[in-house]
Amino acid sequence: MKTLLPYLSTPDDLRSLPAELLPGLAREIRDFLIDKVSARGGHLGSNLGIVEITIALHRVFRSPDDVIVFDTGHQAYVHKILTGRRDGFDTLRCRGGLSGYPSREESPHDHLASSHASTALAYADGMAKARGIAGGDARAVVAVVGDGALTGGVAWEALNNLGAARHRPVIVVLNDNGRSYAPTVGGCADHLGRLRAAPGVTVFENLGLRYLGPVDGHDIEALEQAMRTALELRAPVVIHCLTRKGLGYEPAEQDLDEHLHAIPVTDPATGRPLSPRTTTWTHAFAHHLCALGERRADLVAITAAMPGPTGLAEFGRRFPERMFDVGIAEQHALASAAGLAMCGLHPVVAVYATFLNRAIDQVLMDVALHRLPVTLVLDRAGITGPDGPSHHGMWDLAALAMVPGMRVAAPRDAVRLSELLEEAVEHDGPTALRFPKAAAGAEIPPAGSVGDVDVLSSTGQDVLLVAVGPMAEPCLSAAAMLSAAGLGVTAVDPRWVIPVSADLRKALCGSRLVVTVEDGIAASGAGALVRQACAPGQHVLNLGLPCEFIGQGSRSELLAEAGLTGQGIAYAIRKELNRWPL
Amino acid sequence: MKTLLPYLSTPDDLRSLPAELLPGLAREIRDFLIDKVSARGGHLGSNLGIVEITIALHRVFRSPDDVIVFDTGHQAYVHKILTGRRDGFDTLRCRGGLSGYPSREESPHDHLASSHASTALAYADGMAKARGIAGGDARAVVAVVGDGALTGGVAWEALNNLGAARHRPVIVVLNDNGRSYAPTVGGCADHLGRLRAAPGVTVFENLGLRYLGPVDGHDIEALEQAMRTALELRAPVVIHCLTRKGLGYEPAEQDLDEHLHAIPVTDPATGRPLSPRTTTWTHAFAHHLCALGERRADLVAITAAMPGPTGLAEFGRRFPERMFDVGIAEQHALASAAGLAMCGLHPVVAVYATFLNRAIDQVLMDVALHRLPVTLVLDRAGITGPDGPSHHGMWDLAALAMVPGMRVAAPRDAVRLSELLEEAVEHDGPTALRFPKAAAGAEIPPAGSVGDVDVLSSTGQDVLLVAVGPMAEPCLSAAAMLSAAGLGVTAVDPRWVIPVSADLRKALCGSRLVVTVEDGIAASGAGALVRQACAPGQHVLNLGLPCEFIGQGSRSELLAEAGLTGQGIAYAIRKELNRWPL
Repeated sequence: MKTLLPYLSTPDDLRSLPAELLPGLAREIRDFLIDKVSARGGHLGSNLGIVEITIALHRVFRSPDDVIVFDTGHQAYVHKILTGRRDGFDTLRCRGGLSGYPSREESPHDHLASSHASTALAYADGMAKARGIAGGDARAVVAVVGDGALTGGVAWEALNNLGAARHRPVIVVLNDNGRSYAPTVGGCADHLGRLRAAPGVTVFENLGLRYLGPVDGHDIEALEQAMRTALELRAPVVIHCLTRKGLGYEPAEQDLDEHLHAIPVTDPATGRPLSPRTTTWTHAFAHHLCALGERRADLVAITAAMPGPTGLAEFGRRFPERMFDVGIAEQHALASAAGLAMCGLHPVVAVYATFLNRAIDQVLMDVALHRLPVTLVLDRAGITGPDGPSHHGMWDLAALAMVPGMRVAAPRDAVRLSELLEEAVEHDGPTALRFPKAAAGAEIPPAGSVGDVDVLSSTGQDVLLVAVGPMAEPCLSAAAMLSAAGLGVTAVDPRWVIPVSADLRKALCGSRLVVTVEDGIAASGAGALVRQACAPGQHVLNLGLPCEFIGQGSRSELLAEAGLTGQGIAYAIRKELNRWPL
Repeated sequence: MKTLLPYLSTPDDLRSLPAELLPGLAREIRDFLIDKVSARGGHLGSNLGIVEITIALHRVFRSPDDVIVFDTGHQAYVHKILTGRRDGFDTLRCRGGLSGYPSREESPHDHLASSHASTALAYADGMAKARGIAGGDARAVVAVVGDGALTGGVAWEALNNLGAARHRPVIVVLNDNGRSYAPTVGGCADHLGRLRAAPGVTVFENLGLRYLGPVDGHDIEALEQAMRTALELRAPVVIHCLTRKGLGYEPAEQDLDEHLHAIPVTDPATGRPLSPRTTTWTHAFAHHLCALGERRADLVAITAAMPGPTGLAEFGRRFPERMFDVGIAEQHALASAAGLAMCGLHPVVAVYATFLNRAIDQVLMDVALHRLPVTLVLDRAGITGPDGPSHHGMWDLAALAMVPGMRVAAPRDAVRLSELLEEAVEHDGPTALRFPKAAAGAEIPPAGSVGDVDVLSSTGQDVLLVAVGPMAEPCLSAAAMLSAAGLGVTAVDPRWVIPVSADLRKALCGSRLVVTVEDGIAASGAGALVRQACAPGQHVLNLGLPCEFIGQGSRSELLAEAGLTGQGIAYAIRKELNRWPL
């Protein structure tokens, strides 16, 4: 079989291909994806499912003048392949390499880099409004969105706006594979399911958009025809495409949980990870939560469409009546948790730290204002890694620091995770626990304590290191280096890092240099609160992440770059002491 | 005519009334509302419209065992009257008096205090889930929601969850008056409008809820019957009630802009405010924005359903094609602004500071990550007053401090507002301006400058007062008091308060005590960033609001309580200097 991919550098090349070659091209793209994504890790299932849609998009529309925006962005690999970035896949998701999401720096064909779900329709609305103001021969605005993303409220807000402007054309390509990570939940997904079987008035039509479909999302000719029809309508329209996530790759199609939505480095033959399975923070949380669930009948768990990745799947299997998947709907997760807590239950809401930003208002107004016992469990806190700027969990400490009555714990190891989770669900008010995407690491037993504050090591009082969660390990290492150089150093773990506790205030007394270390924004997080608790004579250094968007790379690379290693911390302290001697 | 109200202390009393007395009761309640709300200020139009619905609710359902939750909560006055709180209306919205929203402290009939829109359905979902777990003879869960609130995404997230659980009964009472503040916008409102004229498949039915209606929302008998039918269905159901905002009060019905949604102290005969009209910050902003709109054809304005209160109405009249009301949809406001900015326009998004919390993720991931020129104009920043804890704009500085690349300005007077707005829309990146709900006050001209930092007064370098926006006036007054007592005091206004500018760093040098003053959370706002910019030898005091929910009261009362007056600031500084002499 002739290979086509090497001859396709631009969408123009694709448009000039005879239609009969396209199914072969689709197969070639799938083989390429399986090969490259297995080697580097990344989003597989979502990209395998959208091959034909992407081919059709680039044949019907003329990117970049016609704007094509991809919601969430984890399904844009095929788009990258077809817009001249095939070679980049050898550095996929590596530091300095090809982004796993669209990227404005990479290509004029990528209009946005955002990778939180459900916003593409809003961008499209804004772009269509701008084109309306500019007038002239307005080109098309196309938004590609999954059925899962429709469970997010911001998508509804956009549909409500799109539908009301009947002469402002936006084409919504709905890639309906019936799944988020897990199967998509909710009344809208049921509605889309019924449309597969029989036509009827749709939600979209009720809102004022036209509806085309359902279309076989793997039939390029049918897709092209539907897109051309949509273009001619010159009105807001939804093309309902039915696809199968992971299509063409046996292990993905067999993976009924997630269809290999995203994978680590993998053996392409089996779809199994090549690296040995380690116990992650997520595993430890999953285990402890189930144990608590046995003892506490009032414990309920809530996920925003991610039961597997957040570690709630096992809880859901064991206590199905106490587990709620609300869709990609963090706002609803928190506000419905408030409702559950008002009726005497203790909800545990497990979300990625970066997605908590979707529900800050609900944390404040629905949970904290009512002083409700709701526990947030923030996975992927701190540096997350290859998913890049949108996925680092670096805002949670700063955001939760402004919530009245909120208590935040950061476990340094799996033993502390167990203890702190138990303390959290016993507290009669809002709490949060945060931990990173990483192996849980070895236990760091306390060497002593000041009330609730664990003393991890101590050679004197010149410098006090206050470690937030997993920063305990590099802090201990820095403490050892500085002690070897003759400084008296104490390293402590406050366990509960927000607010600053009376015990931590006690521990702060007497040290001339207080150094806080956190894998969150240094200027606005837990350390900034510690700084305020220090006496005027005390010198304070807040180490952590800069208030900047941080690119992709491995967690260890990026932590090292931010100076959050033992050596980095020791260096920063020495530099500070050179400038401001004790 | 006999008066009934004095004999109604509980919903039981109401239920025992013969039906033929109810229209008279409704009239009596309206007279009471007009009388009391005119005297104290508060939400009028929204409560006049919901009299009959509330009577029917309390006759059909047995509160508090049957749960009735009011979305947003600005329409709960009638509910308060009927649940034994009639006497409280003489202290409506006063410090220590009756809340203008539901309040768990006031009554077991009030289940939640939240007063940001669109969350009641989520609470109801959580409560129904909890009742499902508890089992037994579950009582009803009723959520009262306006058509305006359905434009908010979190309402969709809840409908999507409610509809999928066909055997978990929640009764949604949709109070459709066709309005938010202004007429409700969007495809959903058009859909509800069509249902008034002719039946058809509804959005709600597509999502799996049952639909009853439309029902005349001022016909108590019809309402009671629909509610009883809904109760018998034992399924999620929407009762679509058609009402008229402001019904029964001529000035409200004639007010086509907002139907006297909320009013200050008013002459009940005319519906006109009794206090003289002053020039507020909002007026000043509205004026300057229109002037800029004349010069800059790329300027567009976005409101989340509040063109009037945010000062955008005049811009909308003059430049209708450049003004977008997106519904109560702050997420969409920001994400669609990103789309507009990507196409070369400069969006000005005007929202209340407290509602910005709904869109933190969009500020981060959609605007800031793409470094887009979008200007946030945050009205009602700082202490807002009688609307209580949910309406104080005290989180914006803390939230925006964690946004990479965000610049925040706080004008101290209307002249600065004009300058800073112009600087904001000239900046090629995200900016925000914040100002309070208050009269704009007299101009405070600069006495000098350090680069971009205005020096307001100076008698020496012992103490440096850094004033945020309207805190300039009390800072000047404190500076005068302290100077009179022999201290050398300089008061400055950095104008741009986030991030800390190079000029402000320069201004900080040399002072032994730096005092920041802001009407935001002291521990996490602009002052916390200034603290980090100070040298180790410098002593810093951050004055501002405590990280607590702050109750209702007048702005001046609450500012005084937080110590944010000239005297309060001077007192805090003297206390600090007694403890830590210079």
